Amino acid sequence: MQISTADIAQLVKGELIGDGGVIVSGFSGIKEAKKNELAFLANPKYEPLLQDTQAGVILVPRQISCPGKTIIRVDNPSLSFTEVVNHFLKDAPDYRPCGIHPTAVIASGAKLASGVAVGAHTIIEDGAVIAEGCVLYANCYVGAEVQLGRDCLIYPQVVLREKVIIGNRVIIHSGTVVGSDGFGYVTVDGKHVKIPQVGSVLIEDDVEIGANVTIDRARFDRTIIGEGSKIDNLVQIAHNVKIGKHCFVVAQSGIAGSTKLGNYVILAAQSGLVGHIEIGDGAIVTAQSGVSKSIKAGEQVFGSPAVPIKNAFRNNAHIQRLDKYVEMIKDLKKRIEELEKK
Amino acid sequence: MQISTADIAQLVKGELIGDGGVIVSGFSGIKEAKKNELAFLANPKYEPLLQDTQAGVILVPRQISCPGKTIIRVDNPSLSFTEVVNHFLKDAPDYRPCGIHPTAVIASGAKLASGVAVGAHTIIEDGAVIAEGCVLYANCYVGAEVQLGRDCLIYPQVVLREKVIIGNRVIIHSGTVVGSDGFGYVTVDGKHVKIPQVGSVLIEDDVEIGANVTIDRARFDRTIIGEGSKIDNLVQIAHNVKIGKHCFVVAQSGIAGSTKLGNYVILAAQSGLVGHIEIGDGAIVTAQSGVSKSIKAGEQVFGSPAVPIKNAFRNNAHIQRLDKYVEMIKDLKKRIEELEKK
Amino acid sequence: MQISTADIAQLVKGELIGDGGVIVSGFSGIKEAKKNELAFLANPKYEPLLQDTQAGVILVPRQISCPGKTIIRVDNPSLSFTEVVNHFLKDAPDYRPCGIHPTAVIASGAKLASGVAVGAHTIIEDGAVIAEGCVLYANCYVGAEVQLGRDCLIYPQVVLREKVIIGNRVIIHSGTVVGSDGFGYVTVDGKHVKIPQVGSVLIEDDVEIGANVTIDRARFDRTIIGEGSKIDNLVQIAHNVKIGKHCFVVAQSGIAGSTKLGNYVILAAQSGLVGHIEIGDGAIVTAQSGVSKSIKAGEQVFGSPAVPIKNAFRNNAHIQRLDKYVEMIKDLKKRIEELEKK
Repeated sequence: MQISTADIAQLVKGELIGDGGVIVSGFSGIKEAKKNELAFLANPKYEPLLQDTQAGVILVPRQISCPGKTIIRVDNPSLSFTEVVNHFLKDAPDYRPCGIHPTAVIASGAKLASGVAVGAHTIIEDGAVIAEGCVLYANCYVGAEVQLGRDCLIYPQVVLREKVIIGNRVIIHSGTVVGSDGFGYVTVDGKHVKIPQVGSVLIEDDVEIGANVTIDRARFDRTIIGEGSKIDNLVQIAHNVKIGKHCFVVAQSGIAGSTKLGNYVILAAQSGLVGHIEIGDGAIVTAQSGVSKSIKAGEQVFGSPAVPIKNAFRNNAHIQRLDKYVEMIKDLKKRIEELEKK
Repeated sequence: MQISTADIAQLVKGELIGDGGVIVSGFSGIKEAKKNELAFLANPKYEPLLQDTQAGVILVPRQISCPGKTIIRVDNPSLSFTEVVNHFLKDAPDYRPCGIHPTAVIASGAKLASGVAVGAHTIIEDGAVIAEGCVLYANCYVGAEVQLGRDCLIYPQVVLREKVIIGNRVIIHSGTVVGSDGFGYVTVDGKHVKIPQVGSVLIEDDVEIGANVTIDRARFDRTIIGEGSKIDNLVQIAHNVKIGKHCFVVAQSGIAGSTKLGNYVILAAQSGLVGHIEIGDGAIVTAQSGVSKSIKAGEQVFGSPAVPIKNAFRNNAHIQRLDKYVEMIKDLKKRIEELEKK
Repeated sequence: MQISTADIAQLVKGELIGDGGVIVSGFSGIKEAKKNELAFLANPKYEPLLQDTQAGVILVPRQISCPGKTIIRVDNPSLSFTEVVNHFLKDAPDYRPCGIHPTAVIASGAKLASGVAVGAHTIIEDGAVIAEGCVLYANCYVGAEVQLGRDCLIYPQVVLREKVIIGNRVIIHSGTVVGSDGFGYVTVDGKHVKIPQVGSVLIEDDVEIGANVTIDRARFDRTIIGEGSKIDNLVQIAHNVKIGKHCFVVAQSGIAGSTKLGNYVILAAQSGLVGHIEIGDGAIVTAQSGVSKSIKAGEQVFGSPAVPIKNAFRNNAHIQRLDKYVEMIKDLKKRIEELEKK
């Protein structure tokens, strides 16, 4: 789990400038990296960041120099960075199950590609199709007609309800439930009658989903988590929600029914969106915000109810000074009374 | 999963007026329904809603006319509506387990009515009593002395701890834990000593509980979820809480210990109630609100801390204009200074 | 589960003054106790609380008198109180598994002390070490190289991922996931590349963790829950968080990455802390608060963003009166205009 800068240079076929003996034990963005970590600079226009980074070694484009820092010049720094990350992952001790455990219960109508690993007591129902390279840990439940793409990693005690469709290289952490019924009722004579939830969930390629997340199946069509999006722990995604590509949905956030997120949207922790709204590409909802209206692309909001972050900060600054303002009003009133007496 | 309006009319023994060939694939309230959906109008006084609905077909009382809309006249529209919903559900493909899977572990002292279905690896402890028509999916845990009424549907990986009592037709989604210990300690010499939580949980008839919900057992007596109430995903219900009948508790809400809800209360998403308060019948707590005091019947609150919604909206409107008000104050100050100089 | 005051006096070798026939069925702090409950008074300086308590009987230091109340004089009231609590717990009906269930899957390389109980279908992976007195309910997953100290109680469907280290007398409720991957990515060419999360989680002695909690493993070193801390249901603890000793983290709270809590910190329900901050000893974060900056020892905060509670209450009082203030401003403006006309 440790690699010298010299070995990294060799791995990525790069040109090492600086100390080849620095030992790297992790990775980070160039701003956050610590001295035992590898970072990368993809775009020469951010070269000034090189001066300030604490990173032990930085992968940089061929033309870059930075005296005093250990750098490795490569053709494509971001690609090389990913190579090193994957190398690390390959080297990590492997706790994944291999083969199919004899206590797993696999329906005769389920189709598993050769080499799929299934942990102890995991259940795979009829009509499920599981592609090559998938690893399912112990105690999982894979419902009827579920489809899993290649190289998925499913941690212990995940529930995939019937007909859920999952792409390639998807990671799902323990306790997560995909495909539970959406929350929908019609009130008839004072009783809440359940509206059938007969749609499904589609999780696209390269999505990662944290622990104890809930993703409800759509009423008729599909709840969708777009390619490359990352969902943190304890998030709630209601029926018919559509999340775009490469979004971040941070811990304990919730999205109500039928709301649509564009691409590269960020929902910070404990934020909530009402149903039936649209969040534009690249919009940012800050922590604990409650969004009740659609948000345009690139906009950043804060508060409950959420407003543009500039307004929220300004309003909050005023709130902290309300005591002073009230004093001012009282003072003005007194002075006006004085003037009126005259 | 699709049915023509002509077939619906036949099913409910109603009089079809309009197009018998409209294909219905779902249901909704009359305000939300889309053109491929069935709605109903129970009370003639809401007849004006008929004009505006998008519903493809509406079940109406015998005397109603609505030229231009496809309607089905019946004696009791709400009853007929429920009949159609149930017809649909019966037609849905059935993924439920049948019989008792050989890998299920059922204690010799557990009593299962004939026909109860138990999925693979589900565990039923001693003294549990499970009534006719119950379906338990795989990987569930049913603790000692648990009672399940008729026709309950328990999805994979539900935990029902010892002595929990569940009524008829209750649905519980995956990952939900009923009967975990309440959060109670007495601090003795700087250490938090656990207060035994030896009560139970009572879930009444026709309750539905979402995925990854937590419902703690009472300290001595019972935490209660009243008849017909519906609990969404990731909700926290603390020890000794009593929820009335036909309430909605939407996703990620939390209710602290010993708080009581009346009937038909709505807690919108991510709302929180402190302990030891009472929420009157029909009260509505809007999303993300934090309620620290009891609420009267019919009242609607918003904010953290929550206040009547009218006040919350008015206060929020003022907050958005604070910048303007502060400018006004500064302007007034200047003008007073001018006047004082004279 | 019931004991007379006379029997309690005998159990703790104390001097009973008052009614020996009161039947006690539970425990509480002296302020909250009801008439069928036992409380204690450890420090004579709180003697005035004796007058107001509703407790049926109170354990007090030897020198204390309180005519009209039933008291039991002992050398060390808090110690005696704990004795009675433990006596009660011993008497509670025991639903815990005994022995190792034949359906449990225990790797040949796992080491279980003699007498460890393992419920049905629980899986214990290679290299796990489980000390004496541990009880693991059914359907749990204990990953490779996990360590469990003495007398731990693990309820059904808990997941302990690989290498997690757990102290003595730790209680973990159902559905909780310890050691899921932290939420960390570097964005490379528009794709979020996973940062390996190869650290672990350390849970110290006497910690209790509620149901459906998520505790992520650290990136490199350890996420830590300090001795005696109590975590309620549905709490999120991110990677590299360090919680001190004897803290309370109440339901649905979340702590972002690398944040440190001192000792005796209280996070009330649904509160959230951003990453990389420090919360001093004994600080209190009230319900639904969002903390974005470090907090000093003993401080109490409220709001989102959180401010000292005194300020938050004052600001909120002003907000409730904004309507009145705005009226005042308008009135002043009018009067100034009058004055200006003259």
